[in-house]
Amino acid sequence: MKLQLALDSTDVEMAKELLSEVQDIIDIAEIGTPLIIKEGVRAVEQIREQFPSLSLLADLKIVDGGRYESELAFRAGADIVTVLGVADDITVQDVIRSARDNGKAAMVDMLCVLDMGERSEEIDGMLADYICVHTAFDLQTISAPPLHELKTVKTVVTNARIAIAGGINEQTIIDILDENPDIVVVGSAITGSKDPRETALIFKNMITQEKGEP
Amino acid sequence: MKLQLALDSTDVEMAKELLSEVQDIIDIAEIGTPLIIKEGVRAVEQIREQFPSLSLLADLKIVDGGRYESELAFRAGADIVTVLGVADDITVQDVIRSARDNGKAAMVDMLCVLDMGERSEEIDGMLADYICVHTAFDLQTISAPPLHELKTVKTVVTNARIAIAGGINEQTIIDILDENPDIVVVGSAITGSKDPRETALIFKNMITQEKGEP
Repeated sequence: MKLQLALDSTDVEMAKELLSEVQDIIDIAEIGTPLIIKEGVRAVEQIREQFPSLSLLADLKIVDGGRYESELAFRAGADIVTVLGVADDITVQDVIRSARDNGKAAMVDMLCVLDMGERSEEIDGMLADYICVHTAFDLQTISAPPLHELKTVKTVVTNARIAIAGGINEQTIIDILDENPDIVVVGSAITGSKDPRETALIFKNMITQEKGEP
Repeated sequence: MKLQLALDSTDVEMAKELLSEVQDIIDIAEIGTPLIIKEGVRAVEQIREQFPSLSLLADLKIVDGGRYESELAFRAGADIVTVLGVADDITVQDVIRSARDNGKAAMVDMLCVLDMGERSEEIDGMLADYICVHTAFDLQTISAPPLHELKTVKTVVTNARIAIAGGINEQTIIDILDENPDIVVVGSAITGSKDPRETALIFKNMITQEKGEP
């Protein structure tokens, strides 16, 4: 199980400062959508420059122009790019193909997908690298992390690795660990912590203890 | 009927150069999603700086973080920001509220919406400024502009103004003009033209002659 840190700042310097503290603890650094909107993929470039070996996810949430848009991120140094599960099949497939062609990976974000079982089965058939169940930030005051969706996706997916995101903290992670997803995405619980390194370590320990991973 | 030019370059200087040629002809300049991905909303800032009175649309295609992400664009100088119709209601509503609070406008892009009639009625009820029917770029080799969707939306919408986008050229615009949308979005037919100014004038004349507008 891997720990993905969602960088939710819109300031590249702040994001880099935070990464400096936790880079040896986290497995994937997510350049969040607001930072992409603010700075473009130059944020990916700048973070890549300072952290040459860290796995970087660019949260583009592509819904059209699959090949073109994903390549902007891959060229900037991203290892993983996100595309929306609600996008047309051809867009999802183009992002997956673009990932293959660049030796990188595609994550399909299931935000706003209505039929989670059917759509994740389709996307698994397209050989997406990752499927991410995701409770929208705008819903986090009324909704918990998507544990039910995680269970649904697990029952139908045979190829893709599964990620879970949205409102994960030291309490809500407990039930999630039982389901053994491949990636747990944590944002403000770490980025908003008084001691991000200590908090990241707590998450890392919970994740690795659960499955006895190193 | 207004003419919106979709700037599909990922280079701000090229986008500004093109705008210099056509700024007196077009009604709205769209800073396209790839340019936002490449440069962030600094592209909006830079274009705003050179064109202080031109109406600017930032094609963010927001699907979460409605208030936060739309404000990044409004603060950069955008007059209109896009949110996806497939987004959660609260996200669409947050972008509309953010537009109101900033004295700006929200356009809901209906990309990948399955039930066009039902969803546009809902979004019209949320008092979106614009609803945009949109054939995805990734589908334009197999699909025409969304004329059928335009007709559907027209039958249910009572408040919002209606835009149409995706594969509009000098041929496909003809049937669209009969339906009298409020905004026609043209991209590569102008940006890829040998004489963008002349081509923009042709579109402008078709649009204004149709309805006898000045």
